[in-house]
Amino acid sequence: RTPIELAVIPGDGIGPEVTREALKVLDVVAPETFTATHYSLGAEHYLTTGEVLPDEVLEEVRGRDAILLGAIGGKPNDPGIPPGLLERNLLLRLRFALDHHVNLRPSRLYPGVASPLANPGEIDFVVVREGTEGPYTGNGGSIRQGTPQEVATEVSLNTAFGIERVVRDAFARADKRRKKLTLVHKTNVLVHAGSMWWRIVNEVAEEFPEVAVDYLHIDAATIFMVTDPARFDVIVTDNLFGDIITDLAAAVTGGIGLAASGNLNPSRTTPSMFEPVHGSAPDIAGQQKADPTAAILSGAMLLDFFGFAEGAERIEQAVAADIAERVAGESRPTAAIGDAIAARV
Amino acid sequence: RTPIELAVIPGDGIGPEVTREALKVLDVVAPETFTATHYSLGAEHYLTTGEVLPDEVLEEVRGRDAILLGAIGGKPNDPGIPPGLLERNLLLRLRFALDHHVNLRPSRLYPGVASPLANPGEIDFVVVREGTEGPYTGNGGSIRQGTPQEVATEVSLNTAFGIERVVRDAFARADKRRKKLTLVHKTNVLVHAGSMWWRIVNEVAEEFPEVAVDYLHIDAATIFMVTDPARFDVIVTDNLFGDIITDLAAAVTGGIGLAASGNLNPSRTTPSMFEPVHGSAPDIAGQQKADPTAAILSGAMLLDFFGFAEGAERIEQAVAADIAERVAGESRPTAAIGDAIAARV
Ligand SMILES: CC(C)[C@H](C(=O)O)[C@@H](O)C(=O)O
Ligand SMILES: CC(C)[C@H](C(=O)O)[C@@H](O)C(=O)O
Repeated sequence: RTPIELAVIPGDGIGPEVTREALKVLDVVAPETFTATHYSLGAEHYLTTGEVLPDEVLEEVRGRDAILLGAIGGKPNDPGIPPGLLERNLLLRLRFALDHHVNLRPSRLYPGVASPLANPGEIDFVVVREGTEGPYTGNGGSIRQGTPQEVATEVSLNTAFGIERVVRDAFARADKRRKKLTLVHKTNVLVHAGSMWWRIVNEVAEEFPEVAVDYLHIDAATIFMVTDPARFDVIVTDNLFGDIITDLAAAVTGGIGLAASGNLNPSRTTPSMFEPVHGSAPDIAGQQKADPTAAILSGAMLLDFFGFAEGAERIEQAVAADIAERVAGESRPTAAIGDAIAARV
Repeated sequence: RTPIELAVIPGDGIGPEVTREALKVLDVVAPETFTATHYSLGAEHYLTTGEVLPDEVLEEVRGRDAILLGAIGGKPNDPGIPPGLLERNLLLRLRFALDHHVNLRPSRLYPGVASPLANPGEIDFVVVREGTEGPYTGNGGSIRQGTPQEVATEVSLNTAFGIERVVRDAFARADKRRKKLTLVHKTNVLVHAGSMWWRIVNEVAEEFPEVAVDYLHIDAATIFMVTDPARFDVIVTDNLFGDIITDLAAAVTGGIGLAASGNLNPSRTTPSMFEPVHGSAPDIAGQQKADPTAAILSGAMLLDFFGFAEGAERIEQAVAADIAERVAGESRPTAAIGDAIAARV
């Protein structure tokens, strides 16, 4: 159905600037496809109002079709914001409340982008990170806080239900790509969760006989990520290992300035959320210094999610063409990059 | 006291070959300093006897002064060895039973070694990985195994006692080095354990006013490990994050063929254990193809731990000199590399 109702959360720092460019490009490639309602949420909003994500706002957002998010986060070590508060009560709350179980993070080394690797090869893979379980559930606690006898636990919660749905999603993606799936875990140490991941990957593998299955411990996966990242096609992994491997993947493909992500509920019973992987970078905020490419590519993921594959493809090609012409050391204003990509789509 | 009684566990695959060279070099640099008792443990021993680490053997090893370990692990996916069995019941059992709470892993890019990074810079840091807590305690379990309703937990156990002793060790090392300590964790998500790590690092920092303290989330740490590894001096982190970051560190400094480690109990009430970070590499075992450098450097760590700093230094310099003369693509037999380094010390 159109128009698609977007909840736009520009957030903090460079968030508003890059989100503006993402919307600009969406508007060119798919005019009259979206309506946007802006929500003021994030560090600034919290510092002014004391609110993080009021229940009414969450429920209103739940009624939209999708969320476009810029970046969340105040100045580093701002004493006015308890550490982790916005991450847990805004970003992770949205992911958990809206059941964003497929956290999709593509990694591609665009021609013309400098990788920190000497011989990066052709990097083009996607990570399917589980988004609603594992060590991210906030389960755990501590006793005797602040004393030499303090004990703290962090509990990773894992369900066959939760694993099976992302594993199936990852296999389906691999089946449409180069037909290779790599499970990343630490099964030799985290044996309870690990053996369940193993079992379910092997079970679902029978439905996808053409997909070759590989396994790497997370530590070995980080090695291959710098020695042979071209080996990866689709990686499926848990919430924490996915967090780690996708930042490393962004680094080897030229930095988080280019990394897009989708927090998807493929069943579409709630709005999925699209966001650049980068943070709010308060040090360069409001100066038109931010690169909006990751936000623009997140917009392409949004389009693709709603079935506009051709429009998504046009944005990706426009981005690739823009990147290919970038000159090392150049600094175009945020809006100029958005304009240039919008002009190409 | 000399002689120092070594328990030598050559283990599987290339383990015996590389251990032989480590002992060869130790014997040259510190003659008549060690006696060695060999213990047959590992995959082969398990397949022949069904034993992993009998209690009597553990108790005998406990009576030695130190352990030199080669590598543990059978052929990949050997159906005769349950996955994780040797890791948990041999390697981790030794670390936990002998209270190896300081898992020390130096990373240095030797001149002449090819890093996968285009501009690696001068890499020289040590990771102090906690070795007896965190997600490695085997705490957790599962219900409804093998069904679509399975639920599995993995519990990370963290104590102020356990954190404080490694944090203090790490600060002391930083104080003797470039005076920079980086805590790596994921405090914005793992808030219970994370805030205890934060608190204790800040408390111990007061005893080391000259050491500058930095903090990085594990995901950001992997980015810096490929974009600016020279920034690190001493990293202190938990058992799982330490496992991940040290493999990545080994990769950026030219591979796990050079990475040494010490599993230390600095209180010396139990034998500490020295082992190369690499595995048993069964595919090249017994062919004199393995690089014994990591095992030889682990021997240097052993010497250093027993106060023979000058001998340790001689081994390191001999290794550096040997590496500097290596020619890309050359393949010297394992024993020839050991001989060359032994001749230089
Ligand atoms: C901000 C933080 C909670 C978040 C995460 O750990 O998921 C971020 O690192 C990410 O990867 O989106
Ligand atoms: C074999 C495995 C249990 C071990 C670990 O995870 O500690 C290894 O990866 C290491 O780093 O020594």
